[in-house]
Amino acid sequence: MSKVKVGVAGYGAIGQRLADGVAAQDDMELVGVADVAPTLAVKALAERGMPYDLYAAMPGAEETLEAAGIPVSGDFDDLLSKVDIMLDSAPGGIGAKNKVKYEAAGIPAIFQGGESAEVADVFFHGYANYEEGVGKDYLKLTSCNTTGFVRAVDALDREIGVEKVAITIIRRVADPGDTHRGLVDSLQLEGIPNHQCVDLMAIMPHIDATGLLVHTPVTHGHIITLVVTPKRDTTPEEVIEIFKAHPRIRVVRIDEGFDTNTSLFNYARFLGHPRGDMYEIGLFEETVGMSGKDIMFAINIPQESVTIPETVDAIRAALSMQTEGAEAVAATNEYLGM
Amino acid sequence: MSKVKVGVAGYGAIGQRLADGVAAQDDMELVGVADVAPTLAVKALAERGMPYDLYAAMPGAEETLEAAGIPVSGDFDDLLSKVDIMLDSAPGGIGAKNKVKYEAAGIPAIFQGGESAEVADVFFHGYANYEEGVGKDYLKLTSCNTTGFVRAVDALDREIGVEKVAITIIRRVADPGDTHRGLVDSLQLEGIPNHQCVDLMAIMPHIDATGLLVHTPVTHGHIITLVVTPKRDTTPEEVIEIFKAHPRIRVVRIDEGFDTNTSLFNYARFLGHPRGDMYEIGLFEETVGMSGKDIMFAINIPQESVTIPETVDAIRAALSMQTEGAEAVAATNEYLGM
Amino acid sequence: MSKVKVGVAGYGAIGQRLADGVAAQDDMELVGVADVAPTLAVKALAERGMPYDLYAAMPGAEETLEAAGIPVSGDFDDLLSKVDIMLDSAPGGIGAKNKVKYEAAGIPAIFQGGESAEVADVFFHGYANYEEGVGKDYLKLTSCNTTGFVRAVDALDREIGVEKVAITIIRRVADPGDTHRGLVDSLQLEGIPNHQCVDLMAIMPHIDATGLLVHTPVTHGHIITLVVTPKRDTTPEEVIEIFKAHPRIRVVRIDEGFDTNTSLFNYARFLGHPRGDMYEIGLFEETVGMSGKDIMFAINIPQESVTIPETVDAIRAALSMQTEGAEAVAATNEYLGM
Amino acid sequence: MSKVKVGVAGYGAIGQRLADGVAAQDDMELVGVADVAPTLAVKALAERGMPYDLYAAMPGAEETLEAAGIPVSGDFDDLLSKVDIMLDSAPGGIGAKNKVKYEAAGIPAIFQGGESAEVADVFFHGYANYEEGVGKDYLKLTSCNTTGFVRAVDALDREIGVEKVAITIIRRVADPGDTHRGLVDSLQLEGIPNHQCVDLMAIMPHIDATGLLVHTPVTHGHIITLVVTPKRDTTPEEVIEIFKAHPRIRVVRIDEGFDTNTSLFNYARFLGHPRGDMYEIGLFEETVGMSGKDIMFAINIPQESVTIPETVDAIRAALSMQTEGAEAVAATNEYLGM
Repeated sequence: MSKVKVGVAGYGAIGQRLADGVAAQDDMELVGVADVAPTLAVKALAERGMPYDLYAAMPGAEETLEAAGIPVSGDFDDLLSKVDIMLDSAPGGIGAKNKVKYEAAGIPAIFQGGESAEVADVFFHGYANYEEGVGKDYLKLTSCNTTGFVRAVDALDREIGVEKVAITIIRRVADPGDTHRGLVDSLQLEGIPNHQCVDLMAIMPHIDATGLLVHTPVTHGHIITLVVTPKRDTTPEEVIEIFKAHPRIRVVRIDEGFDTNTSLFNYARFLGHPRGDMYEIGLFEETVGMSGKDIMFAINIPQESVTIPETVDAIRAALSMQTEGAEAVAATNEYLGM
Repeated sequence: MSKVKVGVAGYGAIGQRLADGVAAQDDMELVGVADVAPTLAVKALAERGMPYDLYAAMPGAEETLEAAGIPVSGDFDDLLSKVDIMLDSAPGGIGAKNKVKYEAAGIPAIFQGGESAEVADVFFHGYANYEEGVGKDYLKLTSCNTTGFVRAVDALDREIGVEKVAITIIRRVADPGDTHRGLVDSLQLEGIPNHQCVDLMAIMPHIDATGLLVHTPVTHGHIITLVVTPKRDTTPEEVIEIFKAHPRIRVVRIDEGFDTNTSLFNYARFLGHPRGDMYEIGLFEETVGMSGKDIMFAINIPQESVTIPETVDAIRAALSMQTEGAEAVAATNEYLGM
Repeated sequence: MSKVKVGVAGYGAIGQRLADGVAAQDDMELVGVADVAPTLAVKALAERGMPYDLYAAMPGAEETLEAAGIPVSGDFDDLLSKVDIMLDSAPGGIGAKNKVKYEAAGIPAIFQGGESAEVADVFFHGYANYEEGVGKDYLKLTSCNTTGFVRAVDALDREIGVEKVAITIIRRVADPGDTHRGLVDSLQLEGIPNHQCVDLMAIMPHIDATGLLVHTPVTHGHIITLVVTPKRDTTPEEVIEIFKAHPRIRVVRIDEGFDTNTSLFNYARFLGHPRGDMYEIGLFEETVGMSGKDIMFAINIPQESVTIPETVDAIRAALSMQTEGAEAVAATNEYLGM
Repeated sequence: MSKVKVGVAGYGAIGQRLADGVAAQDDMELVGVADVAPTLAVKALAERGMPYDLYAAMPGAEETLEAAGIPVSGDFDDLLSKVDIMLDSAPGGIGAKNKVKYEAAGIPAIFQGGESAEVADVFFHGYANYEEGVGKDYLKLTSCNTTGFVRAVDALDREIGVEKVAITIIRRVADPGDTHRGLVDSLQLEGIPNHQCVDLMAIMPHIDATGLLVHTPVTHGHIITLVVTPKRDTTPEEVIEIFKAHPRIRVVRIDEGFDTNTSLFNYARFLGHPRGDMYEIGLFEETVGMSGKDIMFAINIPQESVTIPETVDAIRAALSMQTEGAEAVAATNEYLGM
């Protein structure tokens, strides 16, 4: 079987990880990545000897990149001419502009959560609504937080049924090394509801969701607490078993040292994962409890890498590589070693 | 009417504020404060010219204090001989030792949340269970978080009725200037349930409470989100009106600049409150919303000063100054300017 | 003697403190403050019952303020018509626009460090170059850091003589509650030289200065280390004595608990200073040492309040209230209780 | 040539990296690592399929480890019986106890900076005093900071000559994920001199060094500013060239995005280095300037990995694998890809 040819637009925090995620899929080929400037990520690509070909994502970028000693393999049109599908992880707003080029080139594309909803035909999640993405040209992932907690809510919904969910997102305010955003000695609130629970309802319209979001001065992952109202009685034990059975949820124990968001980042570093990436959300076992008949628990979202599996799923859906979600996520998971 | 004579043991973060809170009550007299070493708080007391008399809280302390140039008015027994009641804000565990002296001196005492529960006859909250403290010798406050959110839960319980509550405490990990505790770029979890919701149930046994706690690297107040299951249907508007009517809840708006815990600390600084203290909890108006029939909202806990009003209430209860809670809290509130 | 009438433009972090500082001077009268919106500082002024009159600093502001329930005493021209001098602490860039109004009204003005240098006739420091400001119409303070370390360098220069200084500024990246600037888990560098040492040379042209600046994720004051090359041999003991004799330098000891920038902020809170303000820079006694014949030491800069004394000095200079610096700073210090 | 057999005691932050560093040397063989508990690092080793054999470092540890599902290859004596030399990265104080076992087994050992100085015959640095370590049984590295800045000072000393140095260490207070140490919204000072400059003088006794240290709430590396008094006149350009020629100094530019300590950590992540490790210190080119004839500049210390190269050098010295430092460091550098 010939491999599906994939390109990545925007070699930033997400783009780097999309490139690696695609390159790991046996049934896909990473044709190259596109960017516009010699960022640290692009410089590192060059210092590593260009494991991925780099294309100039806009006119003039080729000169800028080559002046910085970065080898360039062609322009954006060159990349588009060689691929079956594009993953767009350009900064928010650029994706909408790029879409015009994808349409002109007649190729489908997958956008990240930062892009506006209008850019896509479907708001996509590999587990929660794979079938809706099958054969569609333009899919959009949800944000890192939504992608992550939808895994947990969907897992409960399949086994127990979920009526409603109230979410508190304790959000990292910036990525490691990001000097453009920050917060010092403050917890910053947004009003109810947060957009993440609105997005959940777009994907799982049968569930009522609301929630609050608090920005905190940390970088290594979000922590989210959820109060889930199930459709039938359950127990913490049953809930934990459901989570343990999910390939994209890593159940960890506080008493074994997994007591922070950073402990999961560190563990991924210790595992030798590139950049300390983790594809799974963390589920802290000792946080699972009951509030009356409602289930309460806390999860960890590794914001830099959590959307990679669902983005790969989206390639499978858009190109109808698999028509059933179960087969698709199984393939993605296998190649990602989950 | 002769004033009730009050002493304070431990002139630290809480003790300083207790002294000010008592001194502000027209029907109480602050006899003095006791401590053991020339801490920054004690040095500042001396630099201010000793507005409060200082007593040496343990043998030998008098020499240490005077060597540092701090005037001392007597030893601990001297203080006990002059007071009707003691407020104990010594470090956790010391209060239990001090209790032996209070018993010997035949005077009642009020302990803070850090002391072990066994030290007291009643776990006390001025609004939620005043009557249980009336005439009791040894009362214990709950922690800053519990004292604060019980105000909100009690307010709803009186008007609407509360069945259960699920709480997420986003906790400041250290006080300003505290170098003995800390956390850097991490969110640290504890298992379910947190002790604060267990404490709520001790005070309000008819309510089911559970919750999670996450430590965050900030110093100027906790943020807590609550999901409250009421006994009848309500609306965000009704809930906001209930909170606005409460003298110890300050309803603020995110869109007016109250978007962080620190904004409330700063506002207290701008108001000229000593040390930037705030007695009220903050209630962020735009966070009030519904999760089905449940109410969700977020509050701010100014951890350094929030327990002062309820501690003053406890003096009133222990000494039967008022036999009804409504009268007692009204007196406390009036003298504190709330 | 009739009092000098002073107005303040911009009631923000600095403006609030300028108003208090002027109000404390027996030979000055604070006529009022001007601002444009119901910020938290302005709201707090109203909640306190308007201890200072508020003027609308731009057309339309009166309506905005009154709509928020803030009493307004007039417009900017009204304020200018009543004062002998203006202190301009409007956001950077606004001061230059305000200057046109000050010139039209024929009144002098003092600008803060954030304003561009062209706005002023003299770059001013109460101790280091008072005489140059005497009788000048437009003076500009230096930034908080420069104002602070010039005190220390000037003190050494008067007694020992200073040849050169190499400065490392470990800078707080945001003020408490500031959500517009921030940095998380990073130390951010600027290239050599920092502008603060360039400013020092503008004020003390006979000294060679250079230095580096590192932003850090804290809010309660800067820490600066200095390596000073003196003109003659000295000892740590002599240096400490020089600093102890300076009214605007507070020599503190690490082993007494003054081991952080925040400890000084806290101490000011404990002293009951409004907002936890400190006018003095902190000098950590145990940090004074020798590097060969060079002197090394560390100071603390309370960024929110440190420039207040020198700004008051600037009023004295501009209006020739005193013609000698020593008399001027003595008056300022006395009224500020330093 | 038969390979030198190396063991590592303590598989923590440093031990993990020592193991990798040794495993990368063509002329060394990593026999195994020893630890006492199923820490996250040990769990990750197991999850990776035990690329390194694990030995139980103390009696009873074997049972604890196996109960946690960690395969164990033997006890500490088994490990000692198989190696030519031990690298001891056990927690501070344990190394001294382990030394008794190394002596009994008749094998040399290299200790890290956290161990007390008495444990070793020589305070060692691969570049600055290699020859003193040749043939010695017990060598001790300096701390991460000293190891790092000695590289820079030694480089200048060889080319220009160094008379004295005044150092400001802006120190990360905890490693990523470390919840046992922390600091929130504070900069914490220590008195002069810091131990790191005392250690420099132990290694380079012909240089006078002093300095100050400030703890900051960050995790991804220290920043150090140095004021170096050279023995002859020089220029920033010459200094930069000297640093660029050093294999263990990475000269980076602020204007290319290397403006923080974290940017270097991130760059190592982007390079695919395990755990985001960097062996080189960073030297920020735009920070190099002159203070009179003194040189001022700032460096970055990747505290988790910086001592690995010098520790490998120490193996070479202790076992007389090379008798000249230049050959030894060249071999280490080559195998580490520097």
